Amino acid sequence: MKINFSPGYLRRQNLRLGDIGEFLLVEKILKKIRKEQPEVIVGPGDDAFVVKMSTDKALVVTKDLLVENIHFDLRYINFFSLGYKSMMVNLSDLAAMGGARPSFAVVGLAMPVDILVKSVDNLYSGMLKAGKDYAFYIAGGDTVASKKDIVISITLFGEIDSDRVITRKGAEPGDLILTSGYFGDSAAGLRILQKQKNARNKSETYLIKKHLSPRPRFDYADILSKHRLATSLIDSSDGLAASLKFIAQNSQVGMNIFMEKIPVSRALRNWARGRSADYFWSLVLAGGEEYELVFTTKPENLSRLKRFGLRPYVIGEVSRQKTIRYFLNGRKYKYSGCGFEHFRG
Amino acid sequence: MKINFSPGYLRRQNLRLGDIGEFLLVEKILKKIRKEQPEVIVGPGDDAFVVKMSTDKALVVTKDLLVENIHFDLRYINFFSLGYKSMMVNLSDLAAMGGARPSFAVVGLAMPVDILVKSVDNLYSGMLKAGKDYAFYIAGGDTVASKKDIVISITLFGEIDSDRVITRKGAEPGDLILTSGYFGDSAAGLRILQKQKNARNKSETYLIKKHLSPRPRFDYADILSKHRLATSLIDSSDGLAASLKFIAQNSQVGMNIFMEKIPVSRALRNWARGRSADYFWSLVLAGGEEYELVFTTKPENLSRLKRFGLRPYVIGEVSRQKTIRYFLNGRKYKYSGCGFEHFRG
Repeated sequence: MKINFSPGYLRRQNLRLGDIGEFLLVEKILKKIRKEQPEVIVGPGDDAFVVKMSTDKALVVTKDLLVENIHFDLRYINFFSLGYKSMMVNLSDLAAMGGARPSFAVVGLAMPVDILVKSVDNLYSGMLKAGKDYAFYIAGGDTVASKKDIVISITLFGEIDSDRVITRKGAEPGDLILTSGYFGDSAAGLRILQKQKNARNKSETYLIKKHLSPRPRFDYADILSKHRLATSLIDSSDGLAASLKFIAQNSQVGMNIFMEKIPVSRALRNWARGRSADYFWSLVLAGGEEYELVFTTKPENLSRLKRFGLRPYVIGEVSRQKTIRYFLNGRKYKYSGCGFEHFRG
Repeated sequence: MKINFSPGYLRRQNLRLGDIGEFLLVEKILKKIRKEQPEVIVGPGDDAFVVKMSTDKALVVTKDLLVENIHFDLRYINFFSLGYKSMMVNLSDLAAMGGARPSFAVVGLAMPVDILVKSVDNLYSGMLKAGKDYAFYIAGGDTVASKKDIVISITLFGEIDSDRVITRKGAEPGDLILTSGYFGDSAAGLRILQKQKNARNKSETYLIKKHLSPRPRFDYADILSKHRLATSLIDSSDGLAASLKFIAQNSQVGMNIFMEKIPVSRALRNWARGRSADYFWSLVLAGGEEYELVFTTKPENLSRLKRFGLRPYVIGEVSRQKTIRYFLNGRKYKYSGCGFEHFRG
């Protein structure tokens, strides 16, 4: 191992991972992420990370894997934004459990040897910025070589009072089905990036931003959890239709969804003009990567939700018969797709 | 999503991931790993996993990423063994913190769509067998598509009394340096597999087994931790020389290593006959994937270690001057390599 590199060498602009090796990279990363935390017994840089947990809280653990050219494309997103977004995706899962507070993240990175050290640095900067914005820290992880594509594996830890957890299981017939925001924007943003790379108008700028910069909806999660205003809760990372299906399956109920009530942004309506209705609805229902919250609640809670400053959209109702039925302006809508699936051949 | 597949279809021998999609695979995996655990508040299959932690213990977290054709080669190892070994690698990190008890694992898998569903099943069976053997469970994770190679990302959680943690930091001048077992076997086993695939004699069979079936040394870790018999502790996943360097760096000490005292198996000696001394020593010092423990202790503890039934090998002593010096039969040995590094170009 070349441990005698001068700092000047390390700052060289086009230094690649293969030039410095894993150990030096790890040292570089450790310097970046190391800081004193009162509850940390052994910080980054040992065989494992050791932390003292609060005694009265439950530990919440979520994991997401992001694979280059499947989940992200470096032609559309820079390393800083990628690092930031990777954390948002995981934070959304904590929000979806009832607003669990993030405490720390463990990061696994597989990267080709020809990646620029500067790029890895930017990736970490993005993740650290997310940690700063959402009050958690990076506890270390593993960095290894890959043959070609980058893989980012994040395990995020949070804490929550056990009795404030909201799962996918509690929906009951008669409950309303609500969402925190628009659907279809992120999927449209991705299609714009894939087709032309840059935005040609304000609508496209907005849609691209929605794709590249999702934010977890802790605003909703915190109120739903604190005031026990949801019978079930999920985020919409796999698309609205998939989220609805997961709640229905886990709660063993059915649903009637009124498609005209699904909130759609003005930008998406503009962009979809001239495109087919089926295409439009596939973006809205199966788009994926939305990170809005989908939840169910008792009808009498609707006014309370509004009193707490939330403006959720009622998109349907929970039914007894165990199927999900989609209606568009009163007519049954046949929808064959069902969310974004990673493995579909 | 095709949710109407008959079980018969799912059992079809050559069914591939692309045929059933991610959601069905996840359902299949969930069925396999789901079981009731008293401390689990929300089990696998929700947005995140929620668990009640013991109040008086510290949480230990370790993460390892295994990338196909970098860390494993499916020509040499089957999916069941790969699953099992992946867990052993992580368990070794828990052992290296002072014998932390594993509690649960979160598994991330990136796989190409043409992988056989049966293979994924076998991979999970191997991981579950490890969980059975070492008393932990799989709490879920994330399964996504990859372009080509398989990536296995495991985050393993354990518990330990805070005051029983042993880090890389406590080595002091005058301490002895010890190891729990042989070095070089795993690296030799890998070279045999790469060259000829099958063993031609007993020595080769043994070396291959050492490479494919490592075991964490909880026998050592537990005693070292319980009776406070180590001033520093690390596992040797990156090779002996790297482990020594990590202890020396973190403890801010130097070391004198007496190479003739490093334990080497009879099988490795047999196999290395006719090969150069440099090659032999590079396997022993920089081989990697050994998962033996390397630790330091006060000289007066040596007899206590033996009284507890351990037979460690003393390979050197901690010195005040901050360099690591290697001696072979009293003569200084120049060793240029330093452990296995993933990114070396």
